[in-house]
Amino acid sequence: MSRELNVPGLAYGGDYNPEQWPEEVWAEDMRLMVEAGVNMVSVNIFSWALLEPSEGVYDYSRLDRVLDMLYAHGIAADLATPTAAPPAWFFRAHPEALPVDRDGRRLSYGSRQTFCPSSPAYREAALRIARALGERYADHPAVVMWHVHNEYGCHNAECYCDTSAEAFRTWLRGRYDNDLAALNDAWGTTFWSQWYYDWDEVLPPRATGAVPNPTHRLDWRRFCSDELLSLCTAERAVLAEAAPTLPATTNFMVMYNFDALDYWRWAPELDVVSNDHYLRSTDPESEIDIAMSGDVVRSLAGGRPWLLMEHSTGAVNWQPVNRAKTAGELRRNALAHVAHGADGIAYFQWRAAKAGAEQWHSAMLPHAGTDSVIWRDVVALGADLRALAEVRGAVGTAETAIVWDWDARWALELPSQPSEEVRYLDLIRSWYEPLWRAGVAVDFVRPDADLSAYRLVLAPSLYLVDDAGAANLTGFAERGGTLAVGFHSGAVDANCHVRLGGYPGAFREALGVRTDELFPLLPGETVGLTGGGTASLWSERVGLAGAAAVTSYTDGPLTGLPAVTRHDHGTGTAWYLATLPDPATLTALLDRVREEAGVRPAADGVPHGVEAVRRRGTDADYLFLIDHGGAGAEVVVAADSVELLGGKPVPSNGLVSVPPGGVAVVREPRVG
Amino acid sequence: MSRELNVPGLAYGGDYNPEQWPEEVWAEDMRLMVEAGVNMVSVNIFSWALLEPSEGVYDYSRLDRVLDMLYAHGIAADLATPTAAPPAWFFRAHPEALPVDRDGRRLSYGSRQTFCPSSPAYREAALRIARALGERYADHPAVVMWHVHNEYGCHNAECYCDTSAEAFRTWLRGRYDNDLAALNDAWGTTFWSQWYYDWDEVLPPRATGAVPNPTHRLDWRRFCSDELLSLCTAERAVLAEAAPTLPATTNFMVMYNFDALDYWRWAPELDVVSNDHYLRSTDPESEIDIAMSGDVVRSLAGGRPWLLMEHSTGAVNWQPVNRAKTAGELRRNALAHVAHGADGIAYFQWRAAKAGAEQWHSAMLPHAGTDSVIWRDVVALGADLRALAEVRGAVGTAETAIVWDWDARWALELPSQPSEEVRYLDLIRSWYEPLWRAGVAVDFVRPDADLSAYRLVLAPSLYLVDDAGAANLTGFAERGGTLAVGFHSGAVDANCHVRLGGYPGAFREALGVRTDELFPLLPGETVGLTGGGTASLWSERVGLAGAAAVTSYTDGPLTGLPAVTRHDHGTGTAWYLATLPDPATLTALLDRVREEAGVRPAADGVPHGVEAVRRRGTDADYLFLIDHGGAGAEVVVAADSVELLGGKPVPSNGLVSVPPGGVAVVREPRVG
Amino acid sequence: MSRELNVPGLAYGGDYNPEQWPEEVWAEDMRLMVEAGVNMVSVNIFSWALLEPSEGVYDYSRLDRVLDMLYAHGIAADLATPTAAPPAWFFRAHPEALPVDRDGRRLSYGSRQTFCPSSPAYREAALRIARALGERYADHPAVVMWHVHNEYGCHNAECYCDTSAEAFRTWLRGRYDNDLAALNDAWGTTFWSQWYYDWDEVLPPRATGAVPNPTHRLDWRRFCSDELLSLCTAERAVLAEAAPTLPATTNFMVMYNFDALDYWRWAPELDVVSNDHYLRSTDPESEIDIAMSGDVVRSLAGGRPWLLMEHSTGAVNWQPVNRAKTAGELRRNALAHVAHGADGIAYFQWRAAKAGAEQWHSAMLPHAGTDSVIWRDVVALGADLRALAEVRGAVGTAETAIVWDWDARWALELPSQPSEEVRYLDLIRSWYEPLWRAGVAVDFVRPDADLSAYRLVLAPSLYLVDDAGAANLTGFAERGGTLAVGFHSGAVDANCHVRLGGYPGAFREALGVRTDELFPLLPGETVGLTGGGTASLWSERVGLAGAAAVTSYTDGPLTGLPAVTRHDHGTGTAWYLATLPDPATLTALLDRVREEAGVRPAADGVPHGVEAVRRRGTDADYLFLIDHGGAGAEVVVAADSVELLGGKPVPSNGLVSVPPGGVAVVREPRVG
Repeated sequence: MSRELNVPGLAYGGDYNPEQWPEEVWAEDMRLMVEAGVNMVSVNIFSWALLEPSEGVYDYSRLDRVLDMLYAHGIAADLATPTAAPPAWFFRAHPEALPVDRDGRRLSYGSRQTFCPSSPAYREAALRIARALGERYADHPAVVMWHVHNEYGCHNAECYCDTSAEAFRTWLRGRYDNDLAALNDAWGTTFWSQWYYDWDEVLPPRATGAVPNPTHRLDWRRFCSDELLSLCTAERAVLAEAAPTLPATTNFMVMYNFDALDYWRWAPELDVVSNDHYLRSTDPESEIDIAMSGDVVRSLAGGRPWLLMEHSTGAVNWQPVNRAKTAGELRRNALAHVAHGADGIAYFQWRAAKAGAEQWHSAMLPHAGTDSVIWRDVVALGADLRALAEVRGAVGTAETAIVWDWDARWALELPSQPSEEVRYLDLIRSWYEPLWRAGVAVDFVRPDADLSAYRLVLAPSLYLVDDAGAANLTGFAERGGTLAVGFHSGAVDANCHVRLGGYPGAFREALGVRTDELFPLLPGETVGLTGGGTASLWSERVGLAGAAAVTSYTDGPLTGLPAVTRHDHGTGTAWYLATLPDPATLTALLDRVREEAGVRPAADGVPHGVEAVRRRGTDADYLFLIDHGGAGAEVVVAADSVELLGGKPVPSNGLVSVPPGGVAVVREPRVG
Repeated sequence: MSRELNVPGLAYGGDYNPEQWPEEVWAEDMRLMVEAGVNMVSVNIFSWALLEPSEGVYDYSRLDRVLDMLYAHGIAADLATPTAAPPAWFFRAHPEALPVDRDGRRLSYGSRQTFCPSSPAYREAALRIARALGERYADHPAVVMWHVHNEYGCHNAECYCDTSAEAFRTWLRGRYDNDLAALNDAWGTTFWSQWYYDWDEVLPPRATGAVPNPTHRLDWRRFCSDELLSLCTAERAVLAEAAPTLPATTNFMVMYNFDALDYWRWAPELDVVSNDHYLRSTDPESEIDIAMSGDVVRSLAGGRPWLLMEHSTGAVNWQPVNRAKTAGELRRNALAHVAHGADGIAYFQWRAAKAGAEQWHSAMLPHAGTDSVIWRDVVALGADLRALAEVRGAVGTAETAIVWDWDARWALELPSQPSEEVRYLDLIRSWYEPLWRAGVAVDFVRPDADLSAYRLVLAPSLYLVDDAGAANLTGFAERGGTLAVGFHSGAVDANCHVRLGGYPGAFREALGVRTDELFPLLPGETVGLTGGGTASLWSERVGLAGAAAVTSYTDGPLTGLPAVTRHDHGTGTAWYLATLPDPATLTALLDRVREEAGVRPAADGVPHGVEAVRRRGTDADYLFLIDHGGAGAEVVVAADSVELLGGKPVPSNGLVSVPPGGVAVVREPRVG
Repeated sequence: MSRELNVPGLAYGGDYNPEQWPEEVWAEDMRLMVEAGVNMVSVNIFSWALLEPSEGVYDYSRLDRVLDMLYAHGIAADLATPTAAPPAWFFRAHPEALPVDRDGRRLSYGSRQTFCPSSPAYREAALRIARALGERYADHPAVVMWHVHNEYGCHNAECYCDTSAEAFRTWLRGRYDNDLAALNDAWGTTFWSQWYYDWDEVLPPRATGAVPNPTHRLDWRRFCSDELLSLCTAERAVLAEAAPTLPATTNFMVMYNFDALDYWRWAPELDVVSNDHYLRSTDPESEIDIAMSGDVVRSLAGGRPWLLMEHSTGAVNWQPVNRAKTAGELRRNALAHVAHGADGIAYFQWRAAKAGAEQWHSAMLPHAGTDSVIWRDVVALGADLRALAEVRGAVGTAETAIVWDWDARWALELPSQPSEEVRYLDLIRSWYEPLWRAGVAVDFVRPDADLSAYRLVLAPSLYLVDDAGAANLTGFAERGGTLAVGFHSGAVDANCHVRLGGYPGAFREALGVRTDELFPLLPGETVGLTGGGTASLWSERVGLAGAAAVTSYTDGPLTGLPAVTRHDHGTGTAWYLATLPDPATLTALLDRVREEAGVRPAADGVPHGVEAVRRRGTDADYLFLIDHGGAGAEVVVAADSVELLGGKPVPSNGLVSVPPGGVAVVREPRVG
């Protein structure tokens, strides 16, 4: 069962923490929310301590007033369980619920999200307050959705305490069907005398003298994701019991450097998929990061729209240097999320805090107040979102899929790989960039996904793949699709065992190649490629076994050997990129691959620097044109189109003008 | 009551550790001390283990002989309590007195200063041995001063154990008048569910999962400074009881990278302010660091002279690479300290150790013995100091003050700021440098100091300022003074709460500006300034509200907006530096500010590279001319002056010659 | 007693872990070992968990089959005690046997070598299984040697637990003859109040607040080496009891960055010295590292041949980026080890693992199988080694010795030195390189070794040297030898006490110099030298006291003072290098030193890039010519020589051809 969010048009708002302010401020909040067009806010996220002053004793008075006030102003509430931050009294009563890190250090409270995910006391306390909230507010007219917890795993994805050890063993018994020999086999414990004779011998991968067992570590990461998921589904079940018709969400963190949770397993458990996304100050093209994360989240949501639950109006406060946004960037960012499938835009946070750890995080209403660029941008964005209300529910249009898999990511980044320079997200992005620049729509898929809708499937990095996933991907090519695979893919199976006989194990036959030895490159090292480009990071001694060399090395120990190959496989084509070409070379290569596969961009004639994304509605398409380059553009669109932000029909010559740094959203009538 | 140090002229000496050497060496020590002109040494600093072989049992025999021998040679003793290094037997008896770090790791003994500042057992033991020393040596004729402990907080400024937690709560009850709601309000504990319902829930800011509460951290730093101060004053009280007329000191560490203690709170508790200062091998202009630290220490001493208790004749041993001093540097360093107010010069250490952790630290008497450059320099310095005896008691002459505040420093460097690149001391020094190069005398002041003696007050970095401090500074400008404020000042109040309505909060009105958003710059990033300079580190969107733009940005997101402003405030002037200009630009700017304020250098016609500093005695001024540049100089001074180091009257043309790399000290008759 | 290894010719093989594979794979292993010419493998290294499923219960079945199978195929077994990796059941029964690190963190099991070296439970368990293996397999015909443990100290050279503390005290009582005053004197505990009144006060150098006592740390390193050695000799004794005629070895790790064990103390306890050596991916000339480590190992073996117990066919898996070997490198590496004295070549590992922490480590039989470059190289190497069978037993020919001492290394790299940039192995290698390039044979010696066989003795870095060692070295020069000493040598005595009176303490007189102050250079800093070179890292103010300046500084604070000196001492010569000249200058200097000393290279007319090494057999010499440069060479050798790899007599012109990247080994008849 999937419940729908009952907010009209596109949702707009942010995290609202009235408990941090005197009540006289609340009235101003209401007035300004209305001014900005806010129609939904998330409340109660960190209110546990105030809501439950002591165990089982609740003080609903403040939250009652907040919800009533919101309702009175026509603003919906995304009501959170405050379970991401248990109060100090809880930890004094249950010190064993504090997490223990890999080094055996028990952390203290006084921040947030510092609890052991496997703690029975925590689980009991979390479900108690979730139940209390469910029972009290299920029928409150302001409440339209449950916001379960907050950013699961942001700080406590792992706990190594004895309680967690017991939970890990329970999880392992489930995974291995209570068969310890199966675990020994999966983990390869004949290596280094690691054989287990008793389940109780199995521990979390705590700090040890030398390199840990990789499968042990991989199963641990799987367990950690599942353990938090079990907390999420438990809260959701309690809430669903109290309020059967209200949808539930939790805010994911599909963004750089967070990789603790396998969201493929999480998304189906939620009614609404929502995401938090923040820019990195050091990323010169964060618009690509927004696009990519948006495509991942849309894919997690099964192609359905999703909500942007948190992003920032300006600088954050948790990076070494926190950059402000430049002119127009707030608008471009928000509308890019919409372009990639968001049906709602929310910020952390409504009003900038004056105290606490996030006092220097930007907000919709900054410290400076309403006489500020940010506030004026926030109000303008509210108007934009109202103008785009009809986009709600429109979906993506991709013919291209990129394989994305947390198991593969975790396994690739375990210690003792050929090269620790090989990072999953860097590889995915290096392949995503040329597609983004070309305006090509992309879905992200699991290795075992239904690929029948795609012309082109890319697997930039798929170190670990199980047999079914590998067969699915190679079968796609065999049946006529175009498959491109990056180096070091197919190397290990689901248990992290190397596939023998030559690399890239699972894909060797489909790619028509066989590598007998890997040649990773040192940081800063490059090798030349035929055609004039260079490659870095990785190389390998590829032998052709049916494939043709497309590009070869012009120097280094592999001079003359293939760097990129192409193989006719079944009725399709399989490409192998055995190295990382420089960006221009990779772009040219992927352009060729894409063109051969017949994949078209979202729109023609879109100049460099302008992002073009299409959402498909029931009756019309919506073409988003976003000028990141700053030069503006004129783009020709379909006849009888309407530019929604300006609210004007497109002239008869079809020319839509995108102002420098600006955005146009064109409703194109569906032909046929 | 402030007791005077009874040593004639300028004190000269060092740490003397005869217990590390056989007694036959001591006679040589006496002979060489006399040869070098040493007139005071610090003894007993690390002698606890030998002095008290077991609890309450004392062996005074060695110390008796040492003091008698010193007295016999006319050398005064600065007698230390050895409480910086409790013996091994103490920790075996009181393992709970070992400190616990932020990660919960209990440290071991075997080094020094590894004890919990809040330990009752330590306090009892420290006061016991202080009392024993006081009673035995109060009337010893060699003893002229108590040296309480050594470098408080050098290694153990913080302890996170349960005993410390209890002490922290006691301190907090005092600060918040036993009102837990006041603490909750000050710390903003409505944020992240951090509300405390019971004092016992409050802990030190131990390692936790995410960012800590900033006010919690700030109060912790205040507590840690106060907790050590309470040990210092307790020892001092015990000593004063035994020897009511002897002055007491403890050696501060006003130098780079030590910031654990709020010496504004410490200095009034001591009769004599003394300081330890060491050069950083990587600082190409450590003469500026000496000058600045000297000015800070002189200011801590309320303008009275102070003692340089430790510095080095050559290399230290605790930096990655420890540079020797170059020709003449030992002399220039020592006399620069005198120029900035020191009435005594001492070294760590008298005789270079042959064993132990500091065996590679330089000394007055090096491993090589008396046939060494260092020894010859040490002997020559003794003669210099005798020649300068009359300088004793002379004070500074500053018309300019720089605001210096540990609360502001601590708060600025808490986590989760807009930029962690912004470092307090770097900012202070970047503003101090142009003044130093111009030969302008500088005092350092608290924000709430009496400013009536100054023409110019600079606040390079004052992130945190309480209301009274802010009013004092802006009132100074309002009443005709010139005030210059650096970016990100006035941002938060004494509880670290952001001042709302626009930045720079507390100074907005006086500066005639209002900033609505901060734009910190990435490492390596610069923006252009009108006039041709560049700026780095920080920028912000300044709106003019009365002020005039002096310099504006020529590129970047703030092109055309003000970078530096000037505002007529009351009868005075208030400048705002909203960025960090490059050194040349900053120098030109501060030169202009200074000249407009009517601030004059110590002497005219002093070439670049020569430091000019004046001390004002009762009847005469003393002009120190120190050639750091190596080119030497001729400087014109007042008629009837005498150059003290050479002991010769200045010729009638008033020309004093400073030899390359050398020093001249001129006694100028007070006119009128 | 020293027992000989009973394997004909040169040994060839690797670590063999059949327990990681199903038994059907074993038959293929046998077939392929025979194909490759493997004649000895190491088995059982990590088999404890399978061999002893629970305490005292053994399952020999698998090992029986493995040994029988090896014997049936003519392959000898180097049978290991599996004590480097106790099973999980052991640690569950004896959690106190897990090691504690310096920070007090008790490590967990699940990797390898994670046990406390001083644990009685571990010792008992290790000796129990060693005894069981000894008794069962002493007479098995396949077994030719015991492989005691594996890489002692690789991950657990230090344990700081209370049991280790007690063992440390026991060791200290032995070292100091049960005299605590002697320990206090040696450690200099009058410094920082560190005096011990009771043995029980002495602890391992656990994490403490400030710098630790250097002699405490140095004795700790000596203890840690000895403690592991006592485990090794205890196992060896148990094995010798069971099998009196079988030799025993353990694999040393003479390679970069491992310095935990004083192998000078270990080597005499073993019948056969063996070594593990791996290349560093970032070393552009790892052939020099191979040569140097080989010379060290040969010297440890007392000049006798040794075994290369582990190296790699290709990439390892434990460096940040793990480079493959280039064409011919596998062969050059292996034969270079033989050239430097190895009588056997073995790899980690026979068959590349598919699971576990070392799954990406190369092997003789790679993941790709026999259709691979590595396998073909492995087979070819087997043939090479058979062709070189007669080399077995031949020894080195050095006239030059380099002083190598672990005490000196440990002491030099303690904290709080003049410069932490000064690294022992870097200095040794910087001096070794010019000798290697010149084709000069080198032995490594202890400071107190018999030097009568040498013309030239170099001490690149000998910070710590005891009186006897110093006298031995200076006596060598006095009696006509040439001695060259590097800076900061002779500085401290065996207790780490500085030698007073001037540097370089112990060598001052012999070198005819006296330094009064050290001037270490900052990273990146250089000073000019007469003759046009530059120097870095270190300088000092050298005074001549009999010596002549060879090179002087042309800039910096020591301009005009000596950087390199030469002194006629007795009937010999003593050189002092008071800085680190750039490589070309150092090469020219050492060439001069060497030529003056009359030291000749192994062969004349060998071009740059070709390594020439001679082993001396009973009846003939063996000249190894290895082309690392890639240009190949023609070298003239003695008449009547035979090139063994090609199996052909050298033509009458004596010209031997070394193909590009290839190797020639020439049997030269012994003249006379």
